[in-house]
Amino acid sequence: MKIAIINGPNLNLLGKREPEVYGNETFEAYFELLQKEFKTIDLIYFQSNHEGDLIDKIHEVGFDFDGIVLNAGAYTHTSIAIADAVSAVETPVIEVHISNVFKREQFRHQSYISPVAKGTIGGFGLQSYKLAISYFLNK
Amino acid sequence: MKIAIINGPNLNLLGKREPEVYGNETFEAYFELLQKEFKTIDLIYFQSNHEGDLIDKIHEVGFDFDGIVLNAGAYTHTSIAIADAVSAVETPVIEVHISNVFKREQFRHQSYISPVAKGTIGGFGLQSYKLAISYFLNK
Amino acid sequence: MKIAIINGPNLNLLGKREPEVYGNETFEAYFELLQKEFKTIDLIYFQSNHEGDLIDKIHEVGFDFDGIVLNAGAYTHTSIAIADAVSAVETPVIEVHISNVFKREQFRHQSYISPVAKGTIGGFGLQSYKLAISYFLNK
Amino acid sequence: MKIAIINGPNLNLLGKREPEVYGNETFEAYFELLQKEFKTIDLIYFQSNHEGDLIDKIHEVGFDFDGIVLNAGAYTHTSIAIADAVSAVETPVIEVHISNVFKREQFRHQSYISPVAKGTIGGFGLQSYKLAISYFLNK
Amino acid sequence: MKIAIINGPNLNLLGKREPEVYGNETFEAYFELLQKEFKTIDLIYFQSNHEGDLIDKIHEVGFDFDGIVLNAGAYTHTSIAIADAVSAVETPVIEVHISNVFKREQFRHQSYISPVAKGTIGGFGLQSYKLAISYFLNK
Amino acid sequence: MKIAIINGPNLNLLGKREPEVYGNETFEAYFELLQKEFKTIDLIYFQSNHEGDLIDKIHEVGFDFDGIVLNAGAYTHTSIAIADAVSAVETPVIEVHISNVFKREQFRHQSYISPVAKGTIGGFGLQSYKLAISYFLNK
Amino acid sequence: MKIAIINGPNLNLLGKREPEVYGNETFEAYFELLQKEFKTIDLIYFQSNHEGDLIDKIHEVGFDFDGIVLNAGAYTHTSIAIADAVSAVETPVIEVHISNVFKREQFRHQSYISPVAKGTIGGFGLQSYKLAISYFLNK
Amino acid sequence: MKIAIINGPNLNLLGKREPEVYGNETFEAYFELLQKEFKTIDLIYFQSNHEGDLIDKIHEVGFDFDGIVLNAGAYTHTSIAIADAVSAVETPVIEVHISNVFKREQFRHQSYISPVAKGTIGGFGLQSYKLAISYFLNK
Amino acid sequence: MKIAIINGPNLNLLGKREPEVYGNETFEAYFELLQKEFKTIDLIYFQSNHEGDLIDKIHEVGFDFDGIVLNAGAYTHTSIAIADAVSAVETPVIEVHISNVFKREQFRHQSYISPVAKGTIGGFGLQSYKLAISYFLNK
Amino acid sequence: MKIAIINGPNLNLLGKREPEVYGNETFEAYFELLQKEFKTIDLIYFQSNHEGDLIDKIHEVGFDFDGIVLNAGAYTHTSIAIADAVSAVETPVIEVHISNVFKREQFRHQSYISPVAKGTIGGFGLQSYKLAISYFLNK
Amino acid sequence: MKIAIINGPNLNLLGKREPEVYGNETFEAYFELLQKEFKTIDLIYFQSNHEGDLIDKIHEVGFDFDGIVLNAGAYTHTSIAIADAVSAVETPVIEVHISNVFKREQFRHQSYISPVAKGTIGGFGLQSYKLAISYFLNK
Amino acid sequence: MKIAIINGPNLNLLGKREPEVYGNETFEAYFELLQKEFKTIDLIYFQSNHEGDLIDKIHEVGFDFDGIVLNAGAYTHTSIAIADAVSAVETPVIEVHISNVFKREQFRHQSYISPVAKGTIGGFGLQSYKLAISYFLNK
Repeated sequence: MKIAIINGPNLNLLGKREPEVYGNETFEAYFELLQKEFKTIDLIYFQSNHEGDLIDKIHEVGFDFDGIVLNAGAYTHTSIAIADAVSAVETPVIEVHISNVFKREQFRHQSYISPVAKGTIGGFGLQSYKLAISYFLNK
Repeated sequence: MKIAIINGPNLNLLGKREPEVYGNETFEAYFELLQKEFKTIDLIYFQSNHEGDLIDKIHEVGFDFDGIVLNAGAYTHTSIAIADAVSAVETPVIEVHISNVFKREQFRHQSYISPVAKGTIGGFGLQSYKLAISYFLNK
Repeated sequence: MKIAIINGPNLNLLGKREPEVYGNETFEAYFELLQKEFKTIDLIYFQSNHEGDLIDKIHEVGFDFDGIVLNAGAYTHTSIAIADAVSAVETPVIEVHISNVFKREQFRHQSYISPVAKGTIGGFGLQSYKLAISYFLNK
Repeated sequence: MKIAIINGPNLNLLGKREPEVYGNETFEAYFELLQKEFKTIDLIYFQSNHEGDLIDKIHEVGFDFDGIVLNAGAYTHTSIAIADAVSAVETPVIEVHISNVFKREQFRHQSYISPVAKGTIGGFGLQSYKLAISYFLNK
Repeated sequence: MKIAIINGPNLNLLGKREPEVYGNETFEAYFELLQKEFKTIDLIYFQSNHEGDLIDKIHEVGFDFDGIVLNAGAYTHTSIAIADAVSAVETPVIEVHISNVFKREQFRHQSYISPVAKGTIGGFGLQSYKLAISYFLNK
Repeated sequence: MKIAIINGPNLNLLGKREPEVYGNETFEAYFELLQKEFKTIDLIYFQSNHEGDLIDKIHEVGFDFDGIVLNAGAYTHTSIAIADAVSAVETPVIEVHISNVFKREQFRHQSYISPVAKGTIGGFGLQSYKLAISYFLNK
Repeated sequence: MKIAIINGPNLNLLGKREPEVYGNETFEAYFELLQKEFKTIDLIYFQSNHEGDLIDKIHEVGFDFDGIVLNAGAYTHTSIAIADAVSAVETPVIEVHISNVFKREQFRHQSYISPVAKGTIGGFGLQSYKLAISYFLNK
Repeated sequence: MKIAIINGPNLNLLGKREPEVYGNETFEAYFELLQKEFKTIDLIYFQSNHEGDLIDKIHEVGFDFDGIVLNAGAYTHTSIAIADAVSAVETPVIEVHISNVFKREQFRHQSYISPVAKGTIGGFGLQSYKLAISYFLNK
Repeated sequence: MKIAIINGPNLNLLGKREPEVYGNETFEAYFELLQKEFKTIDLIYFQSNHEGDLIDKIHEVGFDFDGIVLNAGAYTHTSIAIADAVSAVETPVIEVHISNVFKREQFRHQSYISPVAKGTIGGFGLQSYKLAISYFLNK
Repeated sequence: MKIAIINGPNLNLLGKREPEVYGNETFEAYFELLQKEFKTIDLIYFQSNHEGDLIDKIHEVGFDFDGIVLNAGAYTHTSIAIADAVSAVETPVIEVHISNVFKREQFRHQSYISPVAKGTIGGFGLQSYKLAISYFLNK
Repeated sequence: MKIAIINGPNLNLLGKREPEVYGNETFEAYFELLQKEFKTIDLIYFQSNHEGDLIDKIHEVGFDFDGIVLNAGAYTHTSIAIADAVSAVETPVIEVHISNVFKREQFRHQSYISPVAKGTIGGFGLQSYKLAISYFLNK
Repeated sequence: MKIAIINGPNLNLLGKREPEVYGNETFEAYFELLQKEFKTIDLIYFQSNHEGDLIDKIHEVGFDFDGIVLNAGAYTHTSIAIADAVSAVETPVIEVHISNVFKREQFRHQSYISPVAKGTIGGFGLQSYKLAISYFLNK
């Protein structure tokens, strides 16, 4: 089973950026924990601040991976192009968010990705990723 | 650990109502599976079509249970009163949905409950409940 | 042939509430006239001011009655939950209104029930009910 | 008793236009059935694709007929001029629709005619016309 | 002189719910103070989380009491049915709020009840109730 | 000097239609008074309920008349086509209204013709026409 | 017969401000012409850039003058207070504009004064004032 | 204890302006009654039609009076500047209205002052002022 | 192969109307060029300022022609009735515009016809028609 | 003559992505056909999923090519930056779409590019590109 | 070189009003610093809470000063009349704000003055004024 | 002191793109002037048409530079991701614009960056950059 975690803009700053919103753990450290917990899964991790890179990566893994866990960051709310990529590929995509976006600014309440994703998980801190992976495992 | 699953209007029809959207399993049957899977948890289940009953139940369990898994059904989109109940109690509440509400009518995209919930999980069929419980378990 | 007439909030005040809008006949008196006129039909009548009661009643009659005549009163404009009940059951539902809601406040122009009902009849005073029943009779 | 049925744009195509929405009976055939059923009524039928023709006809019959059954088709949603004609004449007008317009595009949910009509009947196929006539008969 | 105080959803939690917004006095305690202060008035108190119960109670007292003091809680912003009940009865109704709703979320700025109430008093803590009663006393 | 008065839909009913809004004088009678008052002007009068007829007439007189006084009735609020005709011709056009449209329904507050007309005069009863003609006379 | 012309903000700059929109005649010069033309009328003229001054003046002349010609300038679009003054006094008020406000920015299309004025005249340059006065003269 | 009553535009016409809305008592007469009733309070009264005067007065009394009772009239709905003055001073301000503004035009439903006032009282005729003063007295 | 070109309101003025927007060639002259260029096609041309005429013509040619090239002019933005005619007939319809409507007023950006047309071509001057015909030729 | 075809995000998946919307031909195969058909033209083709790359390419070819055929894909609806690039260069740009975007989701109806493009062609499948090129050829 | 600094409503309270937003320096003290820093410039300072006074002052200095630095305070968001004054005069006007208005309430994000000002500077505390003056100095 | 100037999409065309809006100086030439003027500051300059590159650069300099002067071009109005980067880093960011964006299209009036920037300077041509730098210098 192959699952890709794809993170969008500013998530590379996790751990030093606004820790009261996002916690102070880096994603790299958390990714190691995930790999330990889900040893039977072939997990890969990709981050980019470039909308185009995220689309390229979704295309690349989207026809032979078993699942994509996508946190598109701020592009969630503005990128029809990433949403089109999600609906163009065959691999099911789960949208995750670290914070509860509905507690934040109004413009973060709209997601172009939600309607084309398999499902959405948000608000559980970094655990949101783990819940998404465990869904693929149990399917 | 005590967790309450609270279901809102029309979810008593699960299994015979629009199976192409909601599947054909009754919630009672699924609840038995959940109890088997999470044997260490004291799980209770409550359903009502009455907005007031849901509020009463949230009040009742909201100060000594460890978690509430709430699928408020259509009240999700109209009930400020249930949202007020969620923010009034101390127990953390996870909002779940069986279907991906963002794939459906526009008026189902707004949730009064999301901004006051701990987090949101939707689109995974009945598995959405299981993911919510496993969050409480891992916390 | 079994047909249920279901009336929503404040319709129990019919006859004493704002007679210039709703006339001064009670619904009970009118219901007797309907029973006399449609002797071959098994007519029942139910009224409640509780959204949940209306949903419960729609569930109860919605799988073996031949028709439901529903005047959801003010819930017409606010209740997605009743609309979900209407689309969840198998019995066809006709939405009726005593007054012409389009002559009244803007917020009465939207109906969550219209898109899931078989059809809509409004503005004919209590005769709206009779026209609805005669549709079921002629089908 | 004299009643005019007035049909607006594209209703001349009834029977060949989108039969899954409008059925495959022509209105002329249906009109003959109506004449047979309501033998005591002097029924006339008029159709035009021209907004101005519909206004002219409403003016012509609107001071001495006993009722007008008006299906203004797409003009329902755009013509303040027809609505003004309806409120300018003395004959009561019933708005009818063959399909349930509330199940269709958003722009078909608004009617300029509803607030000035006696009442509205929609969603019952061609039977909508018959229900309207029977209202005038029972008044 | 008979006056009914009717409280809506979540107001039964007064005293333990979000004390920074609503204070930490229970309504029952405050009601005793009101009874002591207004000894010449026959004061009753009713609370429910059920929209239908509130409508039933308004109907019950709305034809022979001298005044109703109504804090409909969150239903203020969503219930056309309660507003209809207020305009259907003969007793004048004063809308009260403990907090200043205009300092809170946008959706709490709209009230269906204000346009049908005699007047509105809000933002004075529990004193809002006392001001409402003193209006009836001085009329 | 040649001036055309062009009236739109339902203005042929002037005198019998809603006299509390439009007065009880027919336009024909008023037109005779205008001809007597403005003897030096070659006045013509045209009325139609057909949007297309109004466009045809504006085209016909719009290149050699000295002025057009246009009351497009309800088409004022819906017809971009008439507005395009007004801006396509060379003759200046004054928009007139008998009633004060801003005192009426919201949808009568928008005019497609105002931005392309020379000027607008409304609310003075039939005198609105006379004021418009006197403007052309004094230019 | 006594008529007051009341001009609002920035109209004191007439003649030097944006002459391509407002012409290059001062209002004082034009007012002399008006006085010569309407010798039988007791005409007064008042201008202020202060909203409060305009309200005071409307109060002052609004109970014994025969007419007010009001060009409230930019306050037309923002001042409910001036509109309230217009509806509070007994003297009829005609709203005038020099330019065609509907050809300008969107925010100039709304007028709080139009619904409470007797009528509106706009787009005829300084002649708009003359047409307004001639209406009072002919009444 | 020093309390200032500050009234905004057109309230000087109280008693002769639209008595069906505002009653036919002048505010001066009512103010004398208030002074008699609240003898222990140092009450002052100020009215102006000028937005700037109202701001100046709020500044003047806003740092040493015990309370301000403010009816900003039409400026309630348009003046961010008065609202800024209210939040800039230290004296608590109660917003009052004579009529129930929510029964009137839509644009009177918005108040810039409500979110910065201590509380709001409206719809009780001139008694609204008395209720406001009695709040300060009981605090 | 039979193709109909149908032009809507004000397009008969082509060549003399606003030449900076529409050019100074008449459509008749251009139509002759088209006939010369597409000799193998049976081309017809129809223009009317009447919405109803355009609907009638679409009905007339819409079941046996091979293509319709429709420039509905201003009706593009207001006529649901023409759009219904387009979707009611079997012949594919291409929507064309001479100017780039998206460079013009906001209300010209909406087209009721686009969603029911085969495709849309706009902004190429009269060449828009030629491109549409060449599509049918190459199909 | 030099013409550049520039394709935006996800168009590299053409042929395998949602073939019911976009057909099952790859763009590369189609591009060869275009080169064969337009032998006299120097055609180049560029695709990228990166907004910035598309802007760079428009800058690169936008001052010496004779035409750009631009299908910006989902960026059409979100990228003011690409629209700015289109208006910054001298080469005329034609906006093309494979599908009829007006038949799809509401957010695909807005294009930032249309107002700055020479013209727009959409809905003709891959033929949309050919029609665009033939326009440049015939200019 | 002559430059006028014009401050609008509530800015006279600077130093004692909400110091966490506006700092605790009075403007008079700051103005002395500015005079010392820009000795070669003839600087004047004017403040008023009256919209009309601000317009009068802009008229007074607007034809012979070299620059105006305008902080219209809350009138920024509501006064079309001040904006008209800014565009009516010849002196260039720079709009300044002490706080970053875009960090505050939604209604402070709109400025009627920005589109008619030379430029805008905001968010730098009192330094915003100095930056504005230094622009005029360097021009 | 280290300050970074970061320019967004299309600003590389400065000098040849729409000189009536942006002037005809290249940014490189202007940057040399800035370096000469501010000799004590370590100034760097970066430009990209790629949203992701701008985010990467903000991350890179955002923790040890003393200031960032950011002109995000068209991304100002669409990029929540850049705004997130601005609020994620520690270096204060000043938003600058060459033109007065409020004089241009409506969609340029919204900035996602303004609420998270230290301050905003716009409309002063290339001098906007100089004013921003002089703010950092004087702090």
